[in-house]
Amino acid sequence: MSKGNIKMSYKDTLLGKIKDKSIKVGILGLGYVGLPLAVSFAKKGINVLGFEKAPKKKEKIDKGINYIADVEDADLAKVVNDKSLSATTDFSRISECDAVIVCVPTPLDKFKKPDMTYIESACNDIGKYMKKGVLVSLESTTYPTTTEGFMRPIIEKASGCKHGEEFWLCFSPERVDPGNEEYKTENTPKVIGGLGKDANEIAVALYSLAIKTLYPVSSPAAAEMVKILENTYRLINISMINEIALLCGKMDIDLWEVIEAAKTKPYGFQAFYPGPGIGGHCIPLDPFYLEHIAKNYQFDLTMIHTAGQIDNLMPHRMTIKINSALNRQKKAINGAKVLFLGVAYKPDIDDERQSPALKIMDEVAKKNGIVMYHDPYIPEITTDEGREYKSLDLTDSLLKEVDCVVFTTNHSDFDVKNIVAKAGIIVDLRNATDGIVDGDKIYKL
Amino acid sequence: MSKGNIKMSYKDTLLGKIKDKSIKVGILGLGYVGLPLAVSFAKKGINVLGFEKAPKKKEKIDKGINYIADVEDADLAKVVNDKSLSATTDFSRISECDAVIVCVPTPLDKFKKPDMTYIESACNDIGKYMKKGVLVSLESTTYPTTTEGFMRPIIEKASGCKHGEEFWLCFSPERVDPGNEEYKTENTPKVIGGLGKDANEIAVALYSLAIKTLYPVSSPAAAEMVKILENTYRLINISMINEIALLCGKMDIDLWEVIEAAKTKPYGFQAFYPGPGIGGHCIPLDPFYLEHIAKNYQFDLTMIHTAGQIDNLMPHRMTIKINSALNRQKKAINGAKVLFLGVAYKPDIDDERQSPALKIMDEVAKKNGIVMYHDPYIPEITTDEGREYKSLDLTDSLLKEVDCVVFTTNHSDFDVKNIVAKAGIIVDLRNATDGIVDGDKIYKL
Repeated sequence: MSKGNIKMSYKDTLLGKIKDKSIKVGILGLGYVGLPLAVSFAKKGINVLGFEKAPKKKEKIDKGINYIADVEDADLAKVVNDKSLSATTDFSRISECDAVIVCVPTPLDKFKKPDMTYIESACNDIGKYMKKGVLVSLESTTYPTTTEGFMRPIIEKASGCKHGEEFWLCFSPERVDPGNEEYKTENTPKVIGGLGKDANEIAVALYSLAIKTLYPVSSPAAAEMVKILENTYRLINISMINEIALLCGKMDIDLWEVIEAAKTKPYGFQAFYPGPGIGGHCIPLDPFYLEHIAKNYQFDLTMIHTAGQIDNLMPHRMTIKINSALNRQKKAINGAKVLFLGVAYKPDIDDERQSPALKIMDEVAKKNGIVMYHDPYIPEITTDEGREYKSLDLTDSLLKEVDCVVFTTNHSDFDVKNIVAKAGIIVDLRNATDGIVDGDKIYKL
Repeated sequence: MSKGNIKMSYKDTLLGKIKDKSIKVGILGLGYVGLPLAVSFAKKGINVLGFEKAPKKKEKIDKGINYIADVEDADLAKVVNDKSLSATTDFSRISECDAVIVCVPTPLDKFKKPDMTYIESACNDIGKYMKKGVLVSLESTTYPTTTEGFMRPIIEKASGCKHGEEFWLCFSPERVDPGNEEYKTENTPKVIGGLGKDANEIAVALYSLAIKTLYPVSSPAAAEMVKILENTYRLINISMINEIALLCGKMDIDLWEVIEAAKTKPYGFQAFYPGPGIGGHCIPLDPFYLEHIAKNYQFDLTMIHTAGQIDNLMPHRMTIKINSALNRQKKAINGAKVLFLGVAYKPDIDDERQSPALKIMDEVAKKNGIVMYHDPYIPEITTDEGREYKSLDLTDSLLKEVDCVVFTTNHSDFDVKNIVAKAGIIVDLRNATDGIVDGDKIYKL
């Protein structure tokens, strides 16, 4: 009886703080997901404390300096200035928070297996420092069963608290799409998967403070599967179109033209475009979290596996395209100057995570090509294999000097006509030269 | 010079007949594609002569009796009555036609290889009987290069005529979607791939008589690829979702709920739903035409291949689901009465071609299950293995009598609530019982 009362009181207390906006929200990880979310809550007058292991990011927040493209500089400055948002590297201050939202990375290790160390570390910190009656929400993409099967026991053990009575868990997948001008954190519908009805009720109340449309589902596992399904859909369609692009190259069919024509079908088709490979922090990773957990159920996800095989080979196949283009001029990659245009994983963003461009650059460098790049958004990069490059100015003399120009990203501010006019051989992996007829020098994917 | 004049004159003559609507259009094959197209032309006052090897179909046309669900009965009766449309089994009458449109089947043989005999036979008939100055258009889905590489030499040899001077070839893929109430032949944009500029010009002029929106591409091969891309997209997405559905069964996650939640993402996602397997005359076939021709370019299409593997196994996996459901009641398939609801390959149509239901019925019958079915649209069927069944009346006593009811098609006029109330064990492969909570008797995919 008294236990029931305590449970009610924690829940009612938390719902009350949400209702009167006196709640303090802790956000673990102030990156591409955490910072936009923190600003979204803070803009509504909620007191947000960001936890960040990187002191440099904390210092930037202290100064009101923005470092995430999807966040408006003025928004960040304003919420820091009015003290709605502050940041700390001291995770013991989790004890101040009524709700904790986890936005840490969930990368794959070198063997393409889930690296759960960030979530594990976050759960240990939360369990160690949290007060009773807290909602803990995970936003990081991970395999279904993580929230209930992985997080819950760690937090319960570290805190000595019981889920459903002294704290609540929820999985609510982030849907950040870097560079999307229309859909930002606040106006993108958000799926909520609380562990139990109370958790769902509290999580919906909390997120309603910052986000317009919420869509509760029956369990964290369903919500975890939602995010993976969304990105598995993208992975397999991009891989399919990349594979068909390679065939079209052999058959002398312009797949870009084919896709535009297929788009005239008014139902049952969504266009995906070929390119040098998948990139970013979602599509190359999320489906493999599902492939991983499936093994635990004696199940092989063959579509994801096959898509992964195609993707693994794309940088190599693109290097062969560069090789073939140079071969036309009786040149080898060894000793050739190869200029890559765009290293971001998609157009008009400053993010080169998992970008196929970097992998192609490594492969060309290993064949003793002289690698250079230009990207208006990314001043310097370090490749997967540790090579360091700085973005060069895109001058006419540079274009004339190099043996081969490779479009690896189709940033919209590239002056493609001028590039085609000045450059010798062009390998176009993004249809950047669409509509420009110069068959002799353009070598298209 | 005179040669040039002759060429001009054939082309001009044909364009003139199109312009003043005095053209006679021959359509080879009066099935799901040919008959709606024939009626579309005839409705515009064009003289259409349908060629059909099956005398029964010809006789029905003679009497103005419709046999294709997507054609309006009144439309057919009207165009037959006003003599715009007539049919014949005499292919020598191809000589009367100014344009010939080929709508013959392109099935796969038992080894899943393209069966080109229908196209070959049509080309031989055309070459043998056609007059000079004719446009020949193929609508049947086939592998890229068919029109130029397969049809052209057969017709040139059989006719002694030269392409581009004495006749023209075009590929224009059908986009018939049986049961689609919104998009019919006339208002679905149509891709046109003429072999050369003259062929494109003539084909666009011809099809404009019957179809609202045309989209010309640069070659027949591009147009051939368009259709295959559209259906490959569907194949790989259905296969992906079917594979994930099987995993979700093991993980106790409701994939139907997950899909509804994923649909709240306002960009970059299109929902596909799991089911007992792919069916119909397009998705199970078209991608394998591409897989076939790819081998000729030393290329393996691994995504299509993997999707095919999943699909091949679906009927077997669904039989195992039926087995598991019966096992709950300590029953074996051997001797059990299994009632299949819906044998059409998709809801609310009368087409059971390639339907997965038939394959599951064969497998259950082989295990000595007592197979029955009800389908309001299909009174009788013959399975792939030659078993013959007639649709039973769906009475309450039948529902109570059988050991297991299987939803293989979700026809919208099924009274699902009553079926659930009366039946014992239900295996729901289509989420027909969505929202009906009766966990003990419903066994969902």
